[in-house]
Order: sequence, then structure tokens, then C-alpha cells
Amino acid sequence: LWDDDDDPAEEVPPPPVTVDAFLDGRVEAVQPAAGHHRSGLDTVLLAAAVGAGASGTLIDLGAGAGVAGLCVAARARGIEVTLVEREPLLLRCAADALARPANAAFAGRVRLAGLDLAAGERERLAAGLAREAADQVIMNPPFHRPDTVSVSAMSARADAHVLPESGLEPWFRFAAWALRPNGALTVIFRADGLAGLLAGFGDRFGTLTVLPVHPRPGQAAHRVLIRGRKGSRGPLSILPGLPLHEEGGRSFLPPIERMLRDGADLAEVLPPWRS
Amino acid sequence: LWDDDDDPAEEVPPPPVTVDAFLDGRVEAVQPAAGHHRSGLDTVLLAAAVGAGASGTLIDLGAGAGVAGLCVAARARGIEVTLVEREPLLLRCAADALARPANAAFAGRVRLAGLDLAAGERERLAAGLAREAADQVIMNPPFHRPDTVSVSAMSARADAHVLPESGLEPWFRFAAWALRPNGALTVIFRADGLAGLLAGFGDRFGTLTVLPVHPRPGQAAHRVLIRGRKGSRGPLSILPGLPLHEEGGRSFLPPIERMLRDGADLAEVLPPWRS
Repeated sequence: LWDDDDDPAEEVPPPPVTVDAFLDGRVEAVQPAAGHHRSGLDTVLLAAAVGAGASGTLIDLGAGAGVAGLCVAARARGIEVTLVEREPLLLRCAADALARPANAAFAGRVRLAGLDLAAGERERLAAGLAREAADQVIMNPPFHRPDTVSVSAMSARADAHVLPESGLEPWFRFAAWALRPNGALTVIFRADGLAGLLAGFGDRFGTLTVLPVHPRPGQAAHRVLIRGRKGSRGPLSILPGLPLHEEGGRSFLPPIERMLRDGADLAEVLPPWRS
Repeated sequence: LWDDDDDPAEEVPPPPVTVDAFLDGRVEAVQPAAGHHRSGLDTVLLAAAVGAGASGTLIDLGAGAGVAGLCVAARARGIEVTLVEREPLLLRCAADALARPANAAFAGRVRLAGLDLAAGERERLAAGLAREAADQVIMNPPFHRPDTVSVSAMSARADAHVLPESGLEPWFRFAAWALRPNGALTVIFRADGLAGLLAGFGDRFGTLTVLPVHPRPGQAAHRVLIRGRKGSRGPLSILPGLPLHEEGGRSFLPPIERMLRDGADLAEVLPPWRS
């Protein structure tokens, strides 16, 4: 007799993955080799925006393979991390990462929640989330608008590269639902999306800190990192921009190296970021 | 018989004014000595944002005593300037400035329009303005929110210091009415008003260029200069911040001196500003 569960004809081989080291090997991530957003500098910057001394609970929203959340968990020993992601393949990558010995020091403080951002409250609660409970949310939403993305990227279903037409609003709404009052939401995004980001923070958040990230000194920003506090009425501030590479060179500037390799806090290399 | 027009008891002496030199004396402004916003660095920066090679028509919206518009007219010989201001005292200051010999080189290219920003189209047309005709609009709206301004400033009726409750929206609506398609609106404002500014530009403008202005390198921005093009769909860019003073010092950095004293274009000292 055939056992249907073992039918080799029904087994879809998993897509190839890579194992990538972050923070000088303190974190090993498992990522699909192709067809999905692959984490890099943006992800590590987002994680570095959370201080190593932070405590409480943090949600990595739309976590993908979980690199940002894993980097936070590795650096901040007082933080419990939940990776919220809808795509099974990426959740499986995250689970595989948590099982790796290199991540054993912090894997016990990371859990997965398979959930679409548009899911209703009942599904959110069923996934183990709670309303107005998280101390921090971090997110790195898809970078390209559907109307500007290439057809090949669309056909590859590269979800993490494609911002759905509903835009950023579901991301901000989910974050506002999940955060406790005065909890911090930190976002990294394309610099040219600044207006949409500020509209997303909107009246729900205050004390916004805007950090432009520049490829090199003297060049326009390509990314922007923004933190806001839920329910706060404090003023917005624009920090001095953070350049990544030296002028005319390809190597990272020392403050960036410190975050990428040594796991330094963004607030260590850029004190005004301190909340 | 008494002549009512000459009745000295009915004559209100005009408030004291000062004559202030800008751009190393190429512009002499007449400003109320007290009780009103007094133009300074912000105003000259706003004027420097318009290139000396620009041509066509420019409106200085809520011009006050007209310093920004006068500085543009002095630098850009191909530009016709209209100062739009509602307060008679400030219009009189501007008219007095235009009559001064120091300003003779450009006074013929500057005219005044006594008009409230909230005036309807009929009044705007009667004041000599035209719909969708201007090549550029510049504005430096009042800086303080009514809920944060001090009582003394309120009682001094320091209009240029107090943003009315209706906020920035009437300013942007007027600018959008007055500008030709692809015409440029340039605004200088408090950096903490960034979200309101971007909302004001909104869908009516595109190709936004955001320049944070920092008191010193490494300090958060206190001002932001933003230019947008009416009807454009181009992306927003965030330029490297412009610091004013040297670290720990009170003197202006050389690029700022060049704009303040020599009348240099902002795009000369900060090439990415070039439109």
C-alpha cells in the first residue's frame, strides 16, 4: 500500500538556501538563494537601531528570514523577539536558523508567528500576539512600488521586493495595534518614501527621529531610518545624516563597520539616536 | 475749521523701524524694530535657494517686510518678484525699502500685493496675481504653533511668529493656485514641522528636494528647506544636511558666509540642490 504522505511524486523539493553570517558570525541566517529579498546592510542597521541594553518584547514585522530580529536577539540579551512573517518558506528558513548551533545563545528568546499583516485580531491573538503589549516593533517593508518594479521581479513573486498596492498603511496599523503606549516603532525604507512613511506614523506616533542614510558623504540619502513612539506628542527631529562609504571608495566607514562586524549600537556611533 | 485728515490727535505715529543690510549691503530692508518677525539667516537661505540664473516670475508668499524677495531680485536679474503680504505696516516697510537708493538696481522688478492668503480668486486677480502663472513661489511661514507660543508673543500680535490654527494648508493651496505646471515652490520651516510640510506638498507637488539645516555638524536639524515642483511625479530626495556654524564655534562656516555676504547660490555651495 502507498502511504500518501510519503509519495515522492507529491514532494516539492525546497528551493536552495544559503547560510549567511551576520555580526561577525554571531548570527547565522538561512535565506532562499534566489527569488526573495536577501538581507544585508539595511537589515543590520535596523537591528542596530535597537540598543543592546533594551529589554522587553520586540516584534520583527514582515520579518522575512528573520535576520533583523535574530541580530537584535543576539545583541540585546534582555529582549524576547517575535518574527511575524506570512510566507511558509521564509518561516521555515527562520526555524532552520534557530536550530543552528551558532544561534544557540539567543534562539530560546526568538519565536515565530506565521501571520499575514492584514490578518484580523482573532488570528493575531491565535498566533500568540497581544494587543498593545510589545515594547518595540521593527520593520523593513518591501522597497519597490508595484508600478515601478520590473516584470521579472513580479513574476518571481519576490514579495519582499514589492510593496503591495495597499502601501505601508497595513504595516503601521499592525504596529500601532501591537505596541504598548510609548512603545517604539523603528522603520528602515527608501529615502524617497519619506512622505509616505511620515504619513504612516501620522497622529498615532510622536517623538519621531528621522535619520537619513547616505551612500557617501555629499550624496543624497538612499535610505531613511525613522523611529516613533506610540501615542507620544513629542516633536520630530532630523538627525545628521549617516554616510555608509568613504568618499570615492567602496569600503564602509568605521562607524558602519562597528555596527556590521562588532554589533555596535547605532546610538554608540551616532549619540543623537539615543532615545 | 479742522481738516480731519490732518487732525494730529488721529494720527498714529508709525512704529519705529530699522534699516538692515543684507548680502553685504546689496539689499537694504526696512523692518519694524519690534513686535514682528525680523529676517535673518533663514530668509537669506530661502532666497539663495533660487539660482541667480533663474528667470520669469517669483512670488514671495507672506513676504513680511520683503527681505527674501528683495534678496532674490538683487541676485537674479532675470526675475520679476511679487511680494504678497496682508499687513499694511509690513507692506509699507517693503515700499519704503524699494524707494531706497541702495535698492535702485532691482526695485523696478519688485511689486507689492496687499492680500491675505485666504483671499478668494477674485481678490487675488484684483491684486494683480494670475492663476497658474508664476514660475516660482518662495515662503517662510510663521514658525510657532499657537499652542506653543508664549503669551507675550501672542499679545504682541507677532503674526509672523504665530502659525494660525489652519496651519500650513492655506499657504500650500495659494502656492498651488499661483504656480504654473512644473513651477517650483521652495519653503523654509522648523525641522520639527517636516511631516506637516510634506503633507502640505502632498499630491500637488513632486520631485521634492529636502535639505535639513543643522546649527552645527553632529547636531539635529533646526530648519528644513524643501523644494517641490507642481504636478511633478518625480521622486523625493533627501540631501546631505547643511551645517551653519563650525563645531563649538559661533562663526558661520564658509559656504554659509558665501551665501550671506557674497550672495552665492545655494546650488553653488551645495551642488545636489541644483534642480
